[in-house]
Amino acid sequence: MSVRAPAIEIPAQPDIDTVRRLAERCSNWGRWGTDDQLGTLNHIQPSDVVAAAGLVRSGRVFSLSIPVGESGPQTGGFGRFNPIHLMIRDGNAAVTGTVVRDFYGGRDRYIRGTDDLLILPLQSGTQWDALSHIIFDGKIYNGYDATSVGSKGAILNDIAVASERIVGRGVLLDVPRALGLPWLEPGHQIHAADLDACLEAQGVEVGRGDIVLIRTGQMAQCRDAGSWGAYAGGSAPGLALDTATWIFDRDIAAVATDTWGMEVLPNETPDVFQPMHIILLVHAGLMVGEIFELEALADDCAADGQYEFLFSAPPLPITGGVGSPVNPMAIK
Amino acid sequence: MSVRAPAIEIPAQPDIDTVRRLAERCSNWGRWGTDDQLGTLNHIQPSDVVAAAGLVRSGRVFSLSIPVGESGPQTGGFGRFNPIHLMIRDGNAAVTGTVVRDFYGGRDRYIRGTDDLLILPLQSGTQWDALSHIIFDGKIYNGYDATSVGSKGAILNDIAVASERIVGRGVLLDVPRALGLPWLEPGHQIHAADLDACLEAQGVEVGRGDIVLIRTGQMAQCRDAGSWGAYAGGSAPGLALDTATWIFDRDIAAVATDTWGMEVLPNETPDVFQPMHIILLVHAGLMVGEIFELEALADDCAADGQYEFLFSAPPLPITGGVGSPVNPMAIK
Amino acid sequence: MSVRAPAIEIPAQPDIDTVRRLAERCSNWGRWGTDDQLGTLNHIQPSDVVAAAGLVRSGRVFSLSIPVGESGPQTGGFGRFNPIHLMIRDGNAAVTGTVVRDFYGGRDRYIRGTDDLLILPLQSGTQWDALSHIIFDGKIYNGYDATSVGSKGAILNDIAVASERIVGRGVLLDVPRALGLPWLEPGHQIHAADLDACLEAQGVEVGRGDIVLIRTGQMAQCRDAGSWGAYAGGSAPGLALDTATWIFDRDIAAVATDTWGMEVLPNETPDVFQPMHIILLVHAGLMVGEIFELEALADDCAADGQYEFLFSAPPLPITGGVGSPVNPMAIK
Amino acid sequence: MSVRAPAIEIPAQPDIDTVRRLAERCSNWGRWGTDDQLGTLNHIQPSDVVAAAGLVRSGRVFSLSIPVGESGPQTGGFGRFNPIHLMIRDGNAAVTGTVVRDFYGGRDRYIRGTDDLLILPLQSGTQWDALSHIIFDGKIYNGYDATSVGSKGAILNDIAVASERIVGRGVLLDVPRALGLPWLEPGHQIHAADLDACLEAQGVEVGRGDIVLIRTGQMAQCRDAGSWGAYAGGSAPGLALDTATWIFDRDIAAVATDTWGMEVLPNETPDVFQPMHIILLVHAGLMVGEIFELEALADDCAADGQYEFLFSAPPLPITGGVGSPVNPMAIK
Repeated sequence: MSVRAPAIEIPAQPDIDTVRRLAERCSNWGRWGTDDQLGTLNHIQPSDVVAAAGLVRSGRVFSLSIPVGESGPQTGGFGRFNPIHLMIRDGNAAVTGTVVRDFYGGRDRYIRGTDDLLILPLQSGTQWDALSHIIFDGKIYNGYDATSVGSKGAILNDIAVASERIVGRGVLLDVPRALGLPWLEPGHQIHAADLDACLEAQGVEVGRGDIVLIRTGQMAQCRDAGSWGAYAGGSAPGLALDTATWIFDRDIAAVATDTWGMEVLPNETPDVFQPMHIILLVHAGLMVGEIFELEALADDCAADGQYEFLFSAPPLPITGGVGSPVNPMAIK
Repeated sequence: MSVRAPAIEIPAQPDIDTVRRLAERCSNWGRWGTDDQLGTLNHIQPSDVVAAAGLVRSGRVFSLSIPVGESGPQTGGFGRFNPIHLMIRDGNAAVTGTVVRDFYGGRDRYIRGTDDLLILPLQSGTQWDALSHIIFDGKIYNGYDATSVGSKGAILNDIAVASERIVGRGVLLDVPRALGLPWLEPGHQIHAADLDACLEAQGVEVGRGDIVLIRTGQMAQCRDAGSWGAYAGGSAPGLALDTATWIFDRDIAAVATDTWGMEVLPNETPDVFQPMHIILLVHAGLMVGEIFELEALADDCAADGQYEFLFSAPPLPITGGVGSPVNPMAIK
Repeated sequence: MSVRAPAIEIPAQPDIDTVRRLAERCSNWGRWGTDDQLGTLNHIQPSDVVAAAGLVRSGRVFSLSIPVGESGPQTGGFGRFNPIHLMIRDGNAAVTGTVVRDFYGGRDRYIRGTDDLLILPLQSGTQWDALSHIIFDGKIYNGYDATSVGSKGAILNDIAVASERIVGRGVLLDVPRALGLPWLEPGHQIHAADLDACLEAQGVEVGRGDIVLIRTGQMAQCRDAGSWGAYAGGSAPGLALDTATWIFDRDIAAVATDTWGMEVLPNETPDVFQPMHIILLVHAGLMVGEIFELEALADDCAADGQYEFLFSAPPLPITGGVGSPVNPMAIK
Repeated sequence: MSVRAPAIEIPAQPDIDTVRRLAERCSNWGRWGTDDQLGTLNHIQPSDVVAAAGLVRSGRVFSLSIPVGESGPQTGGFGRFNPIHLMIRDGNAAVTGTVVRDFYGGRDRYIRGTDDLLILPLQSGTQWDALSHIIFDGKIYNGYDATSVGSKGAILNDIAVASERIVGRGVLLDVPRALGLPWLEPGHQIHAADLDACLEAQGVEVGRGDIVLIRTGQMAQCRDAGSWGAYAGGSAPGLALDTATWIFDRDIAAVATDTWGMEVLPNETPDVFQPMHIILLVHAGLMVGEIFELEALADDCAADGQYEFLFSAPPLPITGGVGSPVNPMAIK
């Protein structure tokens, strides 16, 4: 870890000025060239991938995606709804034989196929936010104009640029477990010191090129309650402002959490919504994963004490996409 | 490799009887229990994952997905169209500030977000076919009734069951390169002997639990022609019937190709459409990947002579899905 | 009115047998030929249209559709959701000029257009049920097999067959107003005698070829409550079983109500869901309109005492559609 | 007809200046108040509706919509595709009984229903353009800012404002028939003199509050060719610039044609795309109908010599919609 700049003191009541100072402090604009679209994914080197593969010891594999479908957490905010799954042709059509009439031109050649379709808001479930997902002062990461994200999608910083980049060393930070809690309550602020304490409790370090998965346990809490409740957009545990420099200074490649929005809600800044998105996505150029299912992985890490693993979570290469569903793999 | 049954002679003019005999010969129904939904993915053991991770030497990572969007190959067959990408809110709304009016209840708290949506036929691009994708004689893999795939999707053998299973050793078989060709022409039948020759030329073997990627070069041909042409559903190079036992006997976990439909088109069986789908998906319980982009990977393998790699290609856990888009990662 | 058959006595506890007897009693299968797809719309003659036009006296026009959009009543039942409206290109893109880049090939020729899109369950709002919408004992209207409604829609009795047929004399029956009530409570059964009393109170008659609009006031009740509540699929006032023969014997062309499902809920038949749909749609071949907005029209009719009008409510000619949104016009 | 302003001479080579002069000449901004959203629909008075009803003599009814579905003319331009129709549950599910499992909670109460869904670009088929569909110099009709059409649709001038307004006297102008032609060739300019000649040949007049349907015959030509060809966005017969004042001065309420874009293509103005859209939609506030199916109506008018009729073509009240599919009724 190389601290590149002085610490930013977070005032008792942070506001837009605090956010601007943190954004400037954590800015990676121009760091990898004026035409860079990858941001902190540049931190991952091929040698890191090789090293991460060396962490695979038991062969256990964990999917970190919630189910894609109507059981998801969305309630309509920001136009997001849960994925709608529809059949184009199904097994019933095979049984009745109408699939031959409707799809095979009336010519029966023994086979019967089924097909389906999703109507899928790209931020509806387990997902990566692209660097075109957040705009501040008319700019997206690396200073590109907000108009780069037009009616047909992002022509810069789309999710597709990361399509073979999010493979490397993953580290889980199980914050509630380090605190002896089943989960963090909504509104719980995770500070930089909490992350340090968590790492120490887990006996692991994070550094350049790592993808850091931060468990708050909110998904466990929802499961315990039997309902998503206000998970999508309501109060949530999450990262506090002072973790921005913590993340930035360590040259972390990406961050993901098990919450809807990564950072604590209500935000520390009454005048700024989701300030960490501004700092991390727009200025640090760091991709953020949300709604990651971390429960089974967390249990496994607690059981064997190994909180690091090979992590492969490529987004779909959606042309112009400002986000992508993903089924992240943690391979231990 | 353990050959479990006598060879099936493929007659000069194979037909439905040939297909039935091959299906029976290659059947895995009941092999992993009457309630199994994973089929040949059962061949992958945790130790295989560990071994596959050991293949990561250079840290080069390859995405095997074509872009997800309107540039895809579909032309309407089977109700499939290219993915439709729509913005829910975009950068223009950020610039004009109407995003505050339309999404933030008129309260400006500095941030501007963008969101998007896909209308996505699940078999439209780079994809896995679930074991519920193909029906024969009223049954899907493991003898489940076709009605298991209803209006709301598959309640058995859906794609979600494989959501943390398709990680293991991948092996590329670059058939045209082994033959000194840039690509195989449409209609070119790839026979078992061709696969053996290819393996020998490449100096690699395949066996239990491997995911085998077979390059025909058709995507290169389309790129060379500047058009998808009849790629989606037209004539294509692909696997011939005698490769079914080759695949089955080696306990291969999954197969993927760079074509629309894995097997040769026109099929060898005038009376049966896509007989290999019947044999492999319905009876062997083997998941099939299609429209895999193998060009860059193939070039790399040719360059360093290493045709094996860690392969991670989990489908999205789409509840009830009979297929899933996927961005497969080959990690060398 | 010509009573064609003896009355069916409705027992104290009607059940499937009652429904079957009513269905047989009210059957129009074969009445207009074995290839008929129009059912009771056949009752409307050109001369009826001329006569109905003669009812236009004031030139006041009433739209009977609720708004199409996210404000609708659906809550997910039967896979129905409220219409999703998305912009393909909007005014923001015009302001920033990116529409030129994204849609006009970079060539600015002064004009700026906007485009949009609906994802629209056809039974989500004000709508006609096609005669292919309901199946009983494996048959749809006129005895066609249920398999006529396949994966690609209805090849018989689709909504498109009615695309220029639903124009004629409309008559409003304002049942609660005749009873001196603001609305009928959920569960309130409207019986044949109530319809007779309503007609008498209003001083109007209904007969061959009429389209009858029956107001329950439930929409007013929802509006009063400020919420749709259980409107979509919950308890509702509506038609009781004995109105089936009342409708059938009068040769009514179509019926529409201001409720989600036309008939009373809970149904009188514990063992049969929506028995009137079986009788009217499947056997009488009568198209049913639902979620019709009748409040303004009802007020106007009460004010001028004229409950009859020219009615024009053509469905969209959706190929294979089993329903259609409609904006019905009552022209007085 | 009251000519309100001097004629605008159309130069041999019209350009943006011509368009601006015509737009100013034909402007209705402020004519019906600064908060008007109806534009020339204000021309229709209740007495006009009564008079139009008096034109109904034979009771013949004509649907002027092409089928809604995959057979439509779109080829992708402006993000428009043909409507996609999907079943939510179909007759096959009824036959197999899985609809009970999937939709009725396993409780069989005899009935079987089918449901469906459209993915429908609102400008894909027979449609009305709302006054929010076209923007010029940052404004829509009545001078509202273009930002009134945001990510969630139009908050001013949306299609829903017209939901009970497009009922009145319709007049068909069958231009090719008046010229003794089966159709007008693509690129054929319809001038004001042609409209006058057509009216004279037909023995009919148009005036205040009329909805004028102009047949070019292009749809007949496509049908004759067996293909839509370049119908969607290619060369087309249509209105020339000098018809703008003709339409404006007569206080016409709305105009519709049987072409994709109402006006002649290629446009007379090389520097301005669709100048008539700018003049009529943005400045005159006149709604434009496109892709109207006029063949059967035209034949009927030719047969009986009656080119006027009651016309009812309400759009769906799509909240925020910048267009709407419509099934227009011509009732004679």
